[in-house]
Amino acid sequence: MALVVQKYGGTSVANMDRIQNVARRVIKTKQAGHDVIVVLSAMAGETDRLINLAQQAAAEPDLREYDALIATGEQVTVSLMALVLNGLGCKARSYLGFQIRITTDRAYQKARIVNVDTWKIQEELKRGSVLVVAGFQGVDEENNITTLGRGGSDTSAVALAAAMRADICEIYTDVDGVYTTDPHLYDKARRLDRVSYDEMLEMARAGAKVLQPRAVEMAKKYEVPIYVKSSFSDEGGTLVTKEDKEMEKEVVSGVTYDRDQAKVTVINVPDRPGIAARLFTPLAEHNIMVDMIIQNASVDGFTDLTFTVSRKDVKQAAVLVREAADDIGAARVEIDDSVAKVSIIGVGMVSHSGVAAKMFATLAKEGINIEMISTSEIKISCVVKAKYTELAVMVLHDAFELGK
Amino acid sequence: MALVVQKYGGTSVANMDRIQNVARRVIKTKQAGHDVIVVLSAMAGETDRLINLAQQAAAEPDLREYDALIATGEQVTVSLMALVLNGLGCKARSYLGFQIRITTDRAYQKARIVNVDTWKIQEELKRGSVLVVAGFQGVDEENNITTLGRGGSDTSAVALAAAMRADICEIYTDVDGVYTTDPHLYDKARRLDRVSYDEMLEMARAGAKVLQPRAVEMAKKYEVPIYVKSSFSDEGGTLVTKEDKEMEKEVVSGVTYDRDQAKVTVINVPDRPGIAARLFTPLAEHNIMVDMIIQNASVDGFTDLTFTVSRKDVKQAAVLVREAADDIGAARVEIDDSVAKVSIIGVGMVSHSGVAAKMFATLAKEGINIEMISTSEIKISCVVKAKYTELAVMVLHDAFELGK
Repeated sequence: MALVVQKYGGTSVANMDRIQNVARRVIKTKQAGHDVIVVLSAMAGETDRLINLAQQAAAEPDLREYDALIATGEQVTVSLMALVLNGLGCKARSYLGFQIRITTDRAYQKARIVNVDTWKIQEELKRGSVLVVAGFQGVDEENNITTLGRGGSDTSAVALAAAMRADICEIYTDVDGVYTTDPHLYDKARRLDRVSYDEMLEMARAGAKVLQPRAVEMAKKYEVPIYVKSSFSDEGGTLVTKEDKEMEKEVVSGVTYDRDQAKVTVINVPDRPGIAARLFTPLAEHNIMVDMIIQNASVDGFTDLTFTVSRKDVKQAAVLVREAADDIGAARVEIDDSVAKVSIIGVGMVSHSGVAAKMFATLAKEGINIEMISTSEIKISCVVKAKYTELAVMVLHDAFELGK
Repeated sequence: MALVVQKYGGTSVANMDRIQNVARRVIKTKQAGHDVIVVLSAMAGETDRLINLAQQAAAEPDLREYDALIATGEQVTVSLMALVLNGLGCKARSYLGFQIRITTDRAYQKARIVNVDTWKIQEELKRGSVLVVAGFQGVDEENNITTLGRGGSDTSAVALAAAMRADICEIYTDVDGVYTTDPHLYDKARRLDRVSYDEMLEMARAGAKVLQPRAVEMAKKYEVPIYVKSSFSDEGGTLVTKEDKEMEKEVVSGVTYDRDQAKVTVINVPDRPGIAARLFTPLAEHNIMVDMIIQNASVDGFTDLTFTVSRKDVKQAAVLVREAADDIGAARVEIDDSVAKVSIIGVGMVSHSGVAAKMFATLAKEGINIEMISTSEIKISCVVKAKYTELAVMVLHDAFELGK
């Protein structure tokens, strides 16, 4: 008998038929003799409906009230699921953040989980009940309702699995696992049976949408094995786990891309201390996330500084950076919002030379110019013109023989 | 400076325009220098939508989960209202049952309030915030979400007013007060400036829908003055309060009617102990509410027993009573589902003779046959054929000069 945490996303509970379908899957797991904790997102579309209501209510919504409003989405799905399970003869109880209780800090809209109480869960499991827990939500110390940000239900599921030392955290979604690249983009994409936390983390950060980076980070920290599966089929699945011998044999395990990139270049920046801070502090203050940052070697006391941001933020970023550039005496600021980031990821990279060279040569052979490069121990990312995204993904996937 | 509790029903918060309208009313009260606690129902139609979802989920919904689902309706309105108020520059915070906290027993769907904590409320009022509290909901001792039953928001408002010793509990609805009779039925109906708790209670029980009987009972117990007003106009209003000298001068203050009545008569019931229990216990076990019960004087050891139930329950009641009637050896059971109850109500009745006689004579003059009579200290109810409802209300309203 194992303790299984199962998380189902918004598309898996989008209507009553799908909720029934999930309920049958839960009952099957229960009947196999396991204890089950189910974590649910809001029905697909519901969170957007609530966000729209909030925006109608106020131009700049109060964050505490915004979270209290949005959190109703998950409350609806968990109580519906518990109704369906009980109706099918499977003892089940819904639990909200304050009932478990899942304590977070008070950073509304992007709260971080601080603690998960386990005694209520233990009590219910002892009674033989399935727990149906609202994902995405918690309460701070003063019982204010908080939400964890988009995709926060993954994090809720991993946090529950970690607190309860669950045997496995199953994340059900609309794809049947983690692929070597996006199968919608390249039909030679191959599903991976296993992937390490670090690879998954880099993939998630580099644009793969199957799992939230925060959830993977937490899984790595507490060594919670994650199994990514489709809620619509019994086939497939990818295990996200610690690195093992077999993984290390693979030099590159995936190619990812991120089209939501815009490039900002500040030209002829005087190279003296405090300049980078002057450029990036205003962005941070306006909650603009900066992805890659590249600074060239300084020539005659001047350098160029390039970074990427999400396309939706580029207009505001340009205004802020132009202001700062004037202040510090840089020559000018250039914007390019038609770029994309293509990355190769693999734990084996550390011990193999020539991976980067092969990537660059592959792109060069197709005439794809590399505009920015950034590397980590297990990832190499190149910014290229957006129109080359598909081509770059395909030739890299072929060059590293990911289709096997 | 006073402490004002304002309760707005579902039609008053049915859409964003109306929520804005309520917000302006709240701000006006706040700007007049008062502390304000706002209690809200779910947006009109929302509770029905949620009930429909629950019914789709399970044929016999689990009561705990049903309440957790339904309670989301109020959570949406209170957070929207707090968003709007803050957007208009008025500091406001939404509060749910578990946050206040409002403790109830565990009778899901019809829970009774056991305690209202006041320290959170006091803290917020000190900070100058408007509290926007979800009506209709509470939590039991173990933090399970409970709901108070239809119209429960009135009870929430009165309970908060009682706990905080508020100066007034204003109940905003779609009519501008309590009338001598239903103005939709008789255009000579006159709005009452004041009405006593007892009269209001009898009116509510006798079919007037403006206030929930439970809320009035609680208001009477804790002497909370209730002001019934329209949320769409500044005119009118009725104060529900303790009896005073002026009220006692009015013999009759209102005529009510209830068309949701069906009459069940058990004929030739052997008159011996335990018979009534045998008849009514099965009804109680099936949650069928019995309204009036009349037993005639016994003749030769046999009596007739007549009672009324809601029309929706009459079929089931007939089956249960026929079974019991066979058991106890009654002759037969007759059903009439085309009756209505017409009542006159007034605190002055106690000290005036001839009120009942005048009522009966008035009905007789119009050829309206009285099928059942029941009286309390301040009320006389007659069951008549349903087709006479309107006529009976009008002639009684005229006879007791309620149009003034």
